[in-house]
Amino acid sequence: DKMPVDHFSFATNHTFKLRYLVNDTFFQEHTGSPIFFYTGNEGDIEMFAQNTGFMFDAAPEFGALLVFAEHRYYGKTLPFGNKSYDLNNVGYLTSQQALADFVVLIRHLQQNQDRPSPVIAFAFGGSYGGMLSAYLRMKYPNIVIGAIAASAPIFQFTGLIPCEAFNRIATSDYRSASPACASSIRKSWAHLNNMSSTDAGRKWLNENWKLCKPLNKSSDINELKDWLQNVYTSLAMIDYPYPTNFLMPVHAANPIAVMCQQLYNSSMTDKVLLKSLFKAVNVYFNYTGSANCLDIDSSATQNLGDLGWSYQSCTEMVMPMCTDGVNDMFEPSVWDFAKFSEECYDTWKVKPDPYRAILMYGGKDISTATNIVFSNGLLDPWTSGGVLSSVSPTTYAIIIPEGAHHLDLRGKNPNDPVSVQKARLFHKNRIRAWIRNFHLNRGKKKKDLYEE
Amino acid sequence: DKMPVDHFSFATNHTFKLRYLVNDTFFQEHTGSPIFFYTGNEGDIEMFAQNTGFMFDAAPEFGALLVFAEHRYYGKTLPFGNKSYDLNNVGYLTSQQALADFVVLIRHLQQNQDRPSPVIAFAFGGSYGGMLSAYLRMKYPNIVIGAIAASAPIFQFTGLIPCEAFNRIATSDYRSASPACASSIRKSWAHLNNMSSTDAGRKWLNENWKLCKPLNKSSDINELKDWLQNVYTSLAMIDYPYPTNFLMPVHAANPIAVMCQQLYNSSMTDKVLLKSLFKAVNVYFNYTGSANCLDIDSSATQNLGDLGWSYQSCTEMVMPMCTDGVNDMFEPSVWDFAKFSEECYDTWKVKPDPYRAILMYGGKDISTATNIVFSNGLLDPWTSGGVLSSVSPTTYAIIIPEGAHHLDLRGKNPNDPVSVQKARLFHKNRIRAWIRNFHLNRGKKKKDLYEE
Repeated sequence: DKMPVDHFSFATNHTFKLRYLVNDTFFQEHTGSPIFFYTGNEGDIEMFAQNTGFMFDAAPEFGALLVFAEHRYYGKTLPFGNKSYDLNNVGYLTSQQALADFVVLIRHLQQNQDRPSPVIAFAFGGSYGGMLSAYLRMKYPNIVIGAIAASAPIFQFTGLIPCEAFNRIATSDYRSASPACASSIRKSWAHLNNMSSTDAGRKWLNENWKLCKPLNKSSDINELKDWLQNVYTSLAMIDYPYPTNFLMPVHAANPIAVMCQQLYNSSMTDKVLLKSLFKAVNVYFNYTGSANCLDIDSSATQNLGDLGWSYQSCTEMVMPMCTDGVNDMFEPSVWDFAKFSEECYDTWKVKPDPYRAILMYGGKDISTATNIVFSNGLLDPWTSGGVLSSVSPTTYAIIIPEGAHHLDLRGKNPNDPVSVQKARLFHKNRIRAWIRNFHLNRGKKKKDLYEE
Repeated sequence: DKMPVDHFSFATNHTFKLRYLVNDTFFQEHTGSPIFFYTGNEGDIEMFAQNTGFMFDAAPEFGALLVFAEHRYYGKTLPFGNKSYDLNNVGYLTSQQALADFVVLIRHLQQNQDRPSPVIAFAFGGSYGGMLSAYLRMKYPNIVIGAIAASAPIFQFTGLIPCEAFNRIATSDYRSASPACASSIRKSWAHLNNMSSTDAGRKWLNENWKLCKPLNKSSDINELKDWLQNVYTSLAMIDYPYPTNFLMPVHAANPIAVMCQQLYNSSMTDKVLLKSLFKAVNVYFNYTGSANCLDIDSSATQNLGDLGWSYQSCTEMVMPMCTDGVNDMFEPSVWDFAKFSEECYDTWKVKPDPYRAILMYGGKDISTATNIVFSNGLLDPWTSGGVLSSVSPTTYAIIIPEGAHHLDLRGKNPNDPVSVQKARLFHKNRIRAWIRNFHLNRGKKKKDLYEE
């Protein structure tokens, strides 16, 4: 494949190979069969293909061709090979270029196939990939006739929502598992701070928390606290009703409930609390029992392209986050854009543009969008930036009360709550209606031609 | 102003000044007053402002702020100064970048004004500028709530319409002025070829046609023929019912009718015909009587950025043109994309991508477009690529039988046909309705919030 690295100018004619996975097991050999097109997000596309079983489950009844497209600069799709993240090469890592990649790829699939060409395509995506699915339909309605945008936080931009919403929702998951759980975690920060301020305390923590990299001075605690906060919110995202290894190491079904079993007693303090917290955290980092020590350098979210997302959040995907310590269980922390911007410049020599995405994609003003299902799970902290009510007559907002981060895109499972089964049924019914309308309109156009 | 030269990547942080003209004579100081925003096309913005009187005529009743934005790489808006057309700088001359310039400028006007900020904006444009107006509404519905796209040939791309349609319509203007006129012009090519094939013939032509640059060999005739064809089609575009200097030197009212007065006799041949044709062409190049000789090096379309359009048509704005010599009055000529592509490469070191615009803007598949008026005049050859029937419930196609190229955007004139007066009324009624709907929807949203 010869994918242009720049779809919007002609200043460079560099091209690259975009990786995509195709499964034609269910594809039926006639042009009415659609493409189910997964708009890849910030990671290896194989991981997303493995965790988007809904597309495989739905394909047979539509005779769909399954395609999973990798997002440029992630997985094996490196436009400049191992120099892709050099400062003079990384600039083409933007959502707009990625969308145009998908446009070119879909048209290529429709035109250059040995098999009969599928005329219709639908976009599927979760999280950032769900944002891309929605944007693909909004910006290129000629390319996909509808989109299933699962847990897509398209409102998670500056000024559109309160920056503390994300962490408030994450907290509510722990609170609903057990009120003592959330309050114990809230208390734990002060205990961690106290403990790490003395040699004896650090020694106790190094031993009792089995830290691979021991704490040597009081400020070392910050890294551990960042790691913990990331673990707590990540577990809220993947709080599925069965064990998975999605985004994180293998972990339990309903991991928050399991974790909170160690934190049921709201009167624990100091070492008792910290010992229990360590047992709780074991659920996350040592579910299989194979870890000898707690390694906070291993990223909480495995397989994601953290480097790429660092760049994207430092350019157009600026998503303000903060905590207040009252409605959430975290240490209070303001959103300091100036500081964030400086850090971005230090790392990437770019200044973030917090309003570009709003300008380009419409912010909350998306009333002309059509044929999009926005689904959101109430366990998922990203619901903070989700579309929770219909914005136009043919956009739909689905709430899945028992759902974590795009549970509806996963394959069916005996432990699925009824709400996610209903959501998947809704998706399929919408797709069926969109196909029907597409053919009705086509027929009408043909009839118009004959009448002229 | 610090306009980024690249809105879709972060590979360069070069910025430039985008020129725009503002007229606030009619602007009313409250936020309900709209911006009337002209999306500049391939030329100096002052020329378009001077020839878009409709916006001035309509502004008072809407209290509108008038803004005319220059298209990058034209007029005084040269992103790299006098090096803008260097091969390593010209690549940012694309319609997509120009649209994003307009997006950024409109948001800037709404936020950084001393005056109360106009919340609502409408796009106006004619010809390529009309295409940009329509695209602006399609791609950025959050930025303009509606568009008046006059004589916008958005279907003038490869495979969407027959390549001979443009020249067939141009011919019909001459034929309807007088059938002998079109047939005389059709005959003239052979006479020109014959005449230029001998020394004596060229001498006769040099003298009788007063050529500034005499013909020295038989192939020199090709340049003259190209010039003539360009004159014929350009006159069809600006066949207005009153004298103007738009796009061409000052010329008569109804210039085709005036020209065809010299060509009423269908039995003329050879020198008689060529002498009459020269008199006819005088209408165009020497209306004021000040020209001493016929200079075919002076561009037919003055003030247009021919260099820039050469580049744009060699990249994304590939508009196939051909003639058949049967339904049109020109020498037959096929559309030879391979040859065209080679010439582009010779000049600009780029290969045209004839399908990019279709992919990016939807080609004929624009059924999700909303709030756009497409107007077309039946005298205008560009109607070949125009939208002649409504493509969705809130797009409108207006036909102006007596109209040339975006006559409806011009200021009112006593000689205006009724059809263009009606078209302008239609535009204003649509704008009024769009404003009303905008406020209705706003009110509804506010009410929804209170009910929650």
